[in-house]
Amino acid sequence: MASSEGSKLWGGRFVGDTDPIMEKFNASIAYDKRMWDADIRGSKAYVKALEKADLVTANEMDKILHGMDQIHEEWSKGVFEIKPGDEDIHTANERRLKELIGEPAGKLHTGRSRNDQAVTDMRLWLRDAIATLKGNALQLITSMVERAAVEIDVLFPGYTHMQRAQPIRWSHWILSHAVALSRDVEHLQEISRRVNVLPLGSGAIAGTPFNIDRDLLRQELSFGDISLNSMDATGQRDFVVEFLFWASLCLTHLSKMSEDLMLYSTKEFSFLTLSDAYSTGSSLMPQKKNADSLELIRSKAGRVFGRCAGFLMTLKGLPSTYNKDLQEDKEAMFDCYDTMHAVLQVTTGVMSTLKINRSVMEGALSPDMLATDLAYYLVRKGVPFREAHGISGKAVFLAESKNIPLNHLTLEDLHTTCPLFSSDVSSVWDYSSSVEQYSAPGGTAKSAVAAQVEQMRTWLKKQT
Amino acid sequence: MASSEGSKLWGGRFVGDTDPIMEKFNASIAYDKRMWDADIRGSKAYVKALEKADLVTANEMDKILHGMDQIHEEWSKGVFEIKPGDEDIHTANERRLKELIGEPAGKLHTGRSRNDQAVTDMRLWLRDAIATLKGNALQLITSMVERAAVEIDVLFPGYTHMQRAQPIRWSHWILSHAVALSRDVEHLQEISRRVNVLPLGSGAIAGTPFNIDRDLLRQELSFGDISLNSMDATGQRDFVVEFLFWASLCLTHLSKMSEDLMLYSTKEFSFLTLSDAYSTGSSLMPQKKNADSLELIRSKAGRVFGRCAGFLMTLKGLPSTYNKDLQEDKEAMFDCYDTMHAVLQVTTGVMSTLKINRSVMEGALSPDMLATDLAYYLVRKGVPFREAHGISGKAVFLAESKNIPLNHLTLEDLHTTCPLFSSDVSSVWDYSSSVEQYSAPGGTAKSAVAAQVEQMRTWLKKQT
Amino acid sequence: MASSEGSKLWGGRFVGDTDPIMEKFNASIAYDKRMWDADIRGSKAYVKALEKADLVTANEMDKILHGMDQIHEEWSKGVFEIKPGDEDIHTANERRLKELIGEPAGKLHTGRSRNDQAVTDMRLWLRDAIATLKGNALQLITSMVERAAVEIDVLFPGYTHMQRAQPIRWSHWILSHAVALSRDVEHLQEISRRVNVLPLGSGAIAGTPFNIDRDLLRQELSFGDISLNSMDATGQRDFVVEFLFWASLCLTHLSKMSEDLMLYSTKEFSFLTLSDAYSTGSSLMPQKKNADSLELIRSKAGRVFGRCAGFLMTLKGLPSTYNKDLQEDKEAMFDCYDTMHAVLQVTTGVMSTLKINRSVMEGALSPDMLATDLAYYLVRKGVPFREAHGISGKAVFLAESKNIPLNHLTLEDLHTTCPLFSSDVSSVWDYSSSVEQYSAPGGTAKSAVAAQVEQMRTWLKKQT
Amino acid sequence: MASSEGSKLWGGRFVGDTDPIMEKFNASIAYDKRMWDADIRGSKAYVKALEKADLVTANEMDKILHGMDQIHEEWSKGVFEIKPGDEDIHTANERRLKELIGEPAGKLHTGRSRNDQAVTDMRLWLRDAIATLKGNALQLITSMVERAAVEIDVLFPGYTHMQRAQPIRWSHWILSHAVALSRDVEHLQEISRRVNVLPLGSGAIAGTPFNIDRDLLRQELSFGDISLNSMDATGQRDFVVEFLFWASLCLTHLSKMSEDLMLYSTKEFSFLTLSDAYSTGSSLMPQKKNADSLELIRSKAGRVFGRCAGFLMTLKGLPSTYNKDLQEDKEAMFDCYDTMHAVLQVTTGVMSTLKINRSVMEGALSPDMLATDLAYYLVRKGVPFREAHGISGKAVFLAESKNIPLNHLTLEDLHTTCPLFSSDVSSVWDYSSSVEQYSAPGGTAKSAVAAQVEQMRTWLKKQT
Repeated sequence: MASSEGSKLWGGRFVGDTDPIMEKFNASIAYDKRMWDADIRGSKAYVKALEKADLVTANEMDKILHGMDQIHEEWSKGVFEIKPGDEDIHTANERRLKELIGEPAGKLHTGRSRNDQAVTDMRLWLRDAIATLKGNALQLITSMVERAAVEIDVLFPGYTHMQRAQPIRWSHWILSHAVALSRDVEHLQEISRRVNVLPLGSGAIAGTPFNIDRDLLRQELSFGDISLNSMDATGQRDFVVEFLFWASLCLTHLSKMSEDLMLYSTKEFSFLTLSDAYSTGSSLMPQKKNADSLELIRSKAGRVFGRCAGFLMTLKGLPSTYNKDLQEDKEAMFDCYDTMHAVLQVTTGVMSTLKINRSVMEGALSPDMLATDLAYYLVRKGVPFREAHGISGKAVFLAESKNIPLNHLTLEDLHTTCPLFSSDVSSVWDYSSSVEQYSAPGGTAKSAVAAQVEQMRTWLKKQT
Repeated sequence: MASSEGSKLWGGRFVGDTDPIMEKFNASIAYDKRMWDADIRGSKAYVKALEKADLVTANEMDKILHGMDQIHEEWSKGVFEIKPGDEDIHTANERRLKELIGEPAGKLHTGRSRNDQAVTDMRLWLRDAIATLKGNALQLITSMVERAAVEIDVLFPGYTHMQRAQPIRWSHWILSHAVALSRDVEHLQEISRRVNVLPLGSGAIAGTPFNIDRDLLRQELSFGDISLNSMDATGQRDFVVEFLFWASLCLTHLSKMSEDLMLYSTKEFSFLTLSDAYSTGSSLMPQKKNADSLELIRSKAGRVFGRCAGFLMTLKGLPSTYNKDLQEDKEAMFDCYDTMHAVLQVTTGVMSTLKINRSVMEGALSPDMLATDLAYYLVRKGVPFREAHGISGKAVFLAESKNIPLNHLTLEDLHTTCPLFSSDVSSVWDYSSSVEQYSAPGGTAKSAVAAQVEQMRTWLKKQT
Repeated sequence: MASSEGSKLWGGRFVGDTDPIMEKFNASIAYDKRMWDADIRGSKAYVKALEKADLVTANEMDKILHGMDQIHEEWSKGVFEIKPGDEDIHTANERRLKELIGEPAGKLHTGRSRNDQAVTDMRLWLRDAIATLKGNALQLITSMVERAAVEIDVLFPGYTHMQRAQPIRWSHWILSHAVALSRDVEHLQEISRRVNVLPLGSGAIAGTPFNIDRDLLRQELSFGDISLNSMDATGQRDFVVEFLFWASLCLTHLSKMSEDLMLYSTKEFSFLTLSDAYSTGSSLMPQKKNADSLELIRSKAGRVFGRCAGFLMTLKGLPSTYNKDLQEDKEAMFDCYDTMHAVLQVTTGVMSTLKINRSVMEGALSPDMLATDLAYYLVRKGVPFREAHGISGKAVFLAESKNIPLNHLTLEDLHTTCPLFSSDVSSVWDYSSSVEQYSAPGGTAKSAVAAQVEQMRTWLKKQT
Repeated sequence: MASSEGSKLWGGRFVGDTDPIMEKFNASIAYDKRMWDADIRGSKAYVKALEKADLVTANEMDKILHGMDQIHEEWSKGVFEIKPGDEDIHTANERRLKELIGEPAGKLHTGRSRNDQAVTDMRLWLRDAIATLKGNALQLITSMVERAAVEIDVLFPGYTHMQRAQPIRWSHWILSHAVALSRDVEHLQEISRRVNVLPLGSGAIAGTPFNIDRDLLRQELSFGDISLNSMDATGQRDFVVEFLFWASLCLTHLSKMSEDLMLYSTKEFSFLTLSDAYSTGSSLMPQKKNADSLELIRSKAGRVFGRCAGFLMTLKGLPSTYNKDLQEDKEAMFDCYDTMHAVLQVTTGVMSTLKINRSVMEGALSPDMLATDLAYYLVRKGVPFREAHGISGKAVFLAESKNIPLNHLTLEDLHTTCPLFSSDVSSVWDYSSSVEQYSAPGGTAKSAVAAQVEQMRTWLKKQT
């Protein structure tokens, strides 16, 4: 008999030894021990339901509760000892319980299966994790919104296709990313509702045959709802997949912001400088200051998406109910949480401490970025936009041919493209008034940006 | 000058010819023409806002509206002619408008960019598409729930790890999949809210400089909300990514159901027979009847996930605002919709027409599936479950050694494992009463399954 | 009986109608018709093997060959008519053959299954497609290598972490991408060997029961080898997956090159200008010239990877041999080929026509990029590199503090960091001689770059 | 100044503290320490090149070599102590070297960058890892081929679409998977060639400015080739991506084999029984014996693919040369290796120890699986196959209608479908002779399967 067999929860009918490589391959304790607290909480709730159903006595219940508290203390203090045969956290805690309180420990698993136990633990764990991440995200958004409020007067080039497009406010840029993150928070909130459903009482597949009060369990563990169908409850991991996807999309947003910031912090753009706290140097080149923080943030979009893609592929085509393939759920969930937890904090640090170079930003505005305004000048004189666009395009071409800035074209030059230009065209060449035109909701005028700040502040207040 | 250049919306400052391969590579008309109706609706709303802002006269507006109606009719009748230079649906419709009504057509694009126009079209299109898919999904769920109601008395083996686990109701199995699909519908509803946001009025990047009433646009196009920030509005495609992911997860659910059904329709299981309407044969082997429908459904999980993965990778690390990379959005969205539309209908057909072989299903129940009940028998006599599990395991081993079914063990045999067995153990060997134990919510007892049917019916009523 | 049933290859034992949605869902003719030529070639070879095995007479063979030639002509001329019931290209061609030559057509499929027929067609098609793509890739590499040869004297900043690192040759940059593409070609060549294996003669699963000479088939179709095992031959699509992955990796390379080029063509860098032939404008902003070609190239990395990911997910966990899920193979393969075919040509155009702005590139070199040389100056005077790196770092910090370029530090300034500096330190501040130090193989000295050009030219010669 | 700053390789010009979260986010020592041996080997080779280039004296070289040996011993014995500030294995080893030998340690990094150092370490590590995996794979293939040789006489149903198709040999099934794995080995060998290229001497980006003999380095480290271009060498991770993809495809193969085996080990099929050493039980259901090993193998296809997808997404759109995003390379590489290492060994164990139930396998053959033979009977009498297929299909339908096995149809029954049937049709109903027809290469006749065994044995001999 295998040395470790005595403590396995399922050893009764097995006679051969397990291949040691297989044993290691099969075990999840190395990572699922992280759910020790959730596992204890789940068991403590469960024993109360057992007592209510007369499957344990009040005395036995107390012993189990007390034993569980002791185990909790061992884990908290870092002295819990994992032993050979503890293939997962459930086995480990139950094994320890038996050591501590003896026979009543054997009653704890009555009517319960690891199938419903493990998924209950995961939901408890993830619910807490989501709350933490929501807090991290709100902190990041808050710091961005407040920064946008402070720096609302700074103008700089807005880019499309990485080419200078139109003058915009720096705060407009900040808010464009904050708005995306606010969608992420709302999205996370929705997922949280689907996480917050109790599967305990679903057994291995068929439900529970004892008089287990599932609503009592729900209340004890503060779940919002109980699962509808035992086969679905034990065999689905949608809540994990949704969480992994959420993180993938959120990190795609952050990869976009990082990409912009890296661009803006090149020598050639020089719009901003990262704090040394979020930069690193080169082992070879003494002058280098690299935005490693931003590169790492950008890179994590791939990492987390990989977890999502991998787990979805694992799920594809599986038959119903629990299959061991599902064991891929936990490492993905933990890694995704850890990554998001670090990324959101580092991003908050980066966004709070970077310094903008206002003069460089404003100096980068160039008259060609007002070509649209030039067309609008004509629109206001009655020229259909499509035609005005063509005229303005010709003016741009003319200036390029003469190798002069667009605003250096003389009235005569402009008249070669359209007779409607008159001396008031000079009013076009003002970046501040250009920007102020965009006052409709969502635009880059000061009033419109200030309104966005207020909308975001109101939204933030509602989140807490 | 390139033959097609005259009609390009951006030709003014360009002097060289476009490489014909590049022209084709760049054009999206081959697929985005599918949004012709949304594009027309968007332009009709936009011209009303232009009129309100005095950028077109009432008369010009009427001409544009009338012209748009004519274009609508041409598309409806299939006679709209795409011409060289029509690089996308927006260009094509505007080019045609100019042919029909002349100069006022040139005013339609005032203050609008293809950046806000294209994404408005997509949101209009997808909103309708989602409504259709929701209807398809509800029809599928309804047919499953009603089937579950009718066949509630049929028992068959529940499997975990593809091994016989415990007796369950066939309807319990059906409902486990219906419940997953109901989550998909709720998930889709949430996405729909994020799709239903108006980006029009965001221009290319900075917003609109004219007095465009975005709330008027919202009402005209029945959007639920307007976008908060113009850079975000034109540069994000989260609603597409979310839709692609939704479909990936939903198809993962259907791949699971298909896998089960394929298993159950093997010769070896013979639990059910697909309708000929959803089966095909072999070009070589005359006896073959293949569940091609199920295999196709299963395969689509990969296809649609590929679209999701591909588009997310395309988005990763892009800088802010519109980049041409975003053009990958439409084919992914269309293909995903078409796939889901077909899959949901075919699945409804399969689930409505398959025939179950009740006698085979019930014949497949075997006494070893009651080993848990045997343990519970002991639990009810006071044996701690963990110990009872071990005793039952030994009984299973004994029966296997003797090569007899578990219920053929004599009382003497059983006594070798535990002295608490008495003659009433015979009551364990009844599948119907075994199943009836699982009466807690979500379980497989008749009452619990009937309750699930009612919950689903109530939920379905709320969806319409 | 379904109207289309008469022409299905497997209708014998089926009595019900097929659901029309299912029929469309199941059919592949819409895309697999693209393999019409390969299908005809395969059938022509097969009938020769049938004749050798006495399964058709010489006369029947001639009729079939002649009929196939007629079908070939119909396809070539675009007059082949697809009829209801033609679910795939194999069915369509065989149906047409029967119309043209009558009964002998019914013998063509003897001992053959669509399982081995379809995969033979795919391998024939892909073999040709790969040859085309290899040619496209070699053309691209050639134009890059020759450009590198011509512009070898141009220096510009080399970047790491998007920050200026060290002066390099522009040709060194070009070659860094050409070298990656040459790996892609070698990789493609390896895949090609695995594509070029004949599966015909594997039947549906078990092989062929007739005296079919598979080596004759191999020779007729110019395959390099024949498949080893019939189950593997009909049930694997590794060659498709490998092709999809190859394209994903190749496009990842091109996405990297595109990213660099987009950066270099921003206003802020202004290192180069794309030809108008590969640029587009804005419908709103007249001054815009966008590098759409580069953005599209970059975006395709996601698209093609999505095909790879999707198909691999479809394959995951499938049972052995042919399952209908495999039908996802063809659209992925075609789309991937079309994308690569366009991308490689457009990239060749972009790289051949872009204009570099040499003065801007060289003007972007800055003294801080020689900080490593400053450290090496000390190394050559015996200072351990680690210490020299620290000293040079301090000099950089000093220059930054004084807000002067690094080479404007006086000898006195430098002495505050290290006493070993003497007047010959001025020799450090020469970009040309800095670059010339890197003469080891793979470096950026002129001789080393010229050597790379020669290595690539030699390699290119070997490829054709 | 940050407490840990003194030991950073790049601290010279930095003045602020690093955010501790950022420090942890940035560090890779937690996982890249695994390359300690490769890092030491690389440094030992490098110091020899430094000595040859007169950058260190022979005495200094000896000190460094000796110091490195001491560090090697510390790692070997598990006593190497990682200290705060050791952000990666390169820093840790160099820091320790300095502690051990003092100043000469500062010369080791002359002309080297972590950019070329890290990738050299990775290539050394992966080269060894690939050799190990190749050995594991060959062991698995060997055990499969030898099992196929031993059990060559066992027949069982071959399935397509999970439906019984034609009788085949069990060994034919085994070999179909062994053949796929042999492709994996050849594929791995090709990748190995691309791994086995020396990047050292590429510096950070531009190459090495000293007289470093890269061919000496190549020989010292037994690389097959040296990298062509320093920018490519330091900035590409193709060899990692290719390895991750290789594992993904290999695991897709193993997921297929596992799926088959799980199916065959269901109660309903009962073709085989896994050894207890590779099975586990249920914590709830005493009778359960689950094929967890197979489920885990199947699940890993998703896991490893996720690593591949994630890393490729990380690479997408990165600019040239080293960016910190590349740091995602190592965890992916290690996890993929560990997974493959375990999976290949566990699979070898499973395949070596499973027991087949020959009588059940042969008992599962059914007369309808000979319907193709019935058609071939007619083909041999001159009926065109397409017609014969239809006739056989009618016979199948007739037998199904009469609810009798196909071979129980009387001659009269058969005559209703075709007059050519005569009494010799009884010879069709023999599974053994049916199988023996498939004697063409790759088929399932005994001779053809034996030939496959020989081909595989020959191939295996060539691999070692």
